[in-house]
Amino acid sequence: MTLDYDIPLEAFRQARARLAPYTRHTPVAPWPLLHNDAPSGLRLKLENLQVVGSFKPRGVCNHMRQLAPEQRKLGVVAASAGNHGLAVAYVARQLSVPAIIYLPQNASPDRVARIQAWGAVVVQYGASYEEAHKLAVEHAESEGLTYVHSFDSASTLAGHGTLALELLEDVPEIDCLLVAIGGGGLIAAVACALKKINPQIKIIGVEPVGAPSMYQSVQAGHLVTLPEARTIADTLATRTVSERTLALTQRYVDEIVLVSDIQIVAAMRWLWAECNQLVEPSGAAALAAALYGAADMTPYQHPVALICGGNVPADPIFQAYESAISK
Amino acid sequence: MTLDYDIPLEAFRQARARLAPYTRHTPVAPWPLLHNDAPSGLRLKLENLQVVGSFKPRGVCNHMRQLAPEQRKLGVVAASAGNHGLAVAYVARQLSVPAIIYLPQNASPDRVARIQAWGAVVVQYGASYEEAHKLAVEHAESEGLTYVHSFDSASTLAGHGTLALELLEDVPEIDCLLVAIGGGGLIAAVACALKKINPQIKIIGVEPVGAPSMYQSVQAGHLVTLPEARTIADTLATRTVSERTLALTQRYVDEIVLVSDIQIVAAMRWLWAECNQLVEPSGAAALAAALYGAADMTPYQHPVALICGGNVPADPIFQAYESAISK
Repeated sequence: MTLDYDIPLEAFRQARARLAPYTRHTPVAPWPLLHNDAPSGLRLKLENLQVVGSFKPRGVCNHMRQLAPEQRKLGVVAASAGNHGLAVAYVARQLSVPAIIYLPQNASPDRVARIQAWGAVVVQYGASYEEAHKLAVEHAESEGLTYVHSFDSASTLAGHGTLALELLEDVPEIDCLLVAIGGGGLIAAVACALKKINPQIKIIGVEPVGAPSMYQSVQAGHLVTLPEARTIADTLATRTVSERTLALTQRYVDEIVLVSDIQIVAAMRWLWAECNQLVEPSGAAALAAALYGAADMTPYQHPVALICGGNVPADPIFQAYESAISK
Repeated sequence: MTLDYDIPLEAFRQARARLAPYTRHTPVAPWPLLHNDAPSGLRLKLENLQVVGSFKPRGVCNHMRQLAPEQRKLGVVAASAGNHGLAVAYVARQLSVPAIIYLPQNASPDRVARIQAWGAVVVQYGASYEEAHKLAVEHAESEGLTYVHSFDSASTLAGHGTLALELLEDVPEIDCLLVAIGGGGLIAAVACALKKINPQIKIIGVEPVGAPSMYQSVQAGHLVTLPEARTIADTLATRTVSERTLALTQRYVDEIVLVSDIQIVAAMRWLWAECNQLVEPSGAAALAAALYGAADMTPYQHPVALICGGNVPADPIFQAYESAISK
């Protein structure tokens, strides 16, 4: 790596202690699998059971617990397509830190409401994450507040990597891990931690065909900015990864494969039929690669697909039951 | 008990071995809890992660694995409001036994499709579970097929009780368990197993206010048939429990409390916000009693609410994403 973005194992272990009071050791789905169409031995790490429904609080918590007292007092600013903002709002509440979250104008009302429920201020601005991010950074700089980036920070990555330590405890025989890529923070962190402990484990990254920002960057050998990112997996619709996540991916990730939106929804349906887990499209992307041929699973006996988030707008289902009560 | 309906501990232990290849040891939800409004120490046994989304396969599998070869060859008949039928269809497929499932005419298309997907024949008949049940029993008798009752069988109850053995392994300090009551098979089995191992554990049964069949039977001291059962929790809408489940409940259950449909939906929403678990109303009933005052939780330090099923019709959510792909 050109710059030293590497993360020492000790950083993941220290992060684990910082996270313990505020996050969960998520389970690997219980067995047996129902469906014969699944790759032999496939298991699922259910990170959708994490607090606030995605892996994001791991990194945010590790980052924010290390802020200086004066930084905490002034407060934090973040920009997010959804899950990162929810994580910042949740952690800020736990640590009694004021938080302002910038979301693009098309963010779902469901996500806005969940963020506000943790006491954070929400500002909706711009047509994309990038525009919201730009204004959020300006706001943080002009007022001297701390900007909490959604993936480009060493301490955030150290937090995300704690997931790898849990996985090695629960599935010590793991020989392959599939991980979805948005900004690349999750895969960079988890791959780094896993490979340092066991270099034999293969790491397969998964991106939507409509948002291959990491795939193209790895192919080109430098950071590529996509003209657009089109996918139903909104939390994977990142036009640019970062130098840091690219460098770690180049070093620790074995392969990147692409899945279509149709495959992603099929995997969402499969997961519901398999074990009643309703997840967002990004949460099903790694599974889709394992199920529908994007990734060659034949070499592996103990593969794990990481189900990284579950924040689907489920409100219509509850509303339907509420309407039925009065009838 | 007037008749000897009691179940020896050994029956639960033997059932566990019979179930192992076909069912799952379901997890207790990971910690910490997010919400301060929950009773202190409350944990959730996520039986919605069981194969086919409810506890039902436990009893069905234990029952059907003990059928004689000639019974298996001819096939089985069952009647169900939904989850039992799905369990029979699943187990029948695993054991290569033909199965016919009778459902009331108002059964959701989603449930019908899931049952058919396991290769079972579905017959929709009558306005209620009771009418479907009556025709199913006649069919079984006239053709010499085995009728698999949804709760009134010693071997079915022995299967359901395996859930208690898992719970004692995962939460050995448990001091209270809340369980929803439909026909009463689940609570009868689990209470019997738990009390035989640790008589100090309190068992609280939970029924909808619109379907208090066990509550009224316990009050009356004999089996009561309700004129109607009105609740959104369709799998708890049982007008009559059985002599067997009543006798075991009288002996092993400490208390029965009632929850409203509004409380049930509020608990569904709570569970989604808490750990992204989307469950059917019956699956949230025990939790509703713990959250909203129906059950007095103040005496307990390690209470567990059993999330017994998750089969909500989730199709509209997947369809919405499928529509979004083409845009």
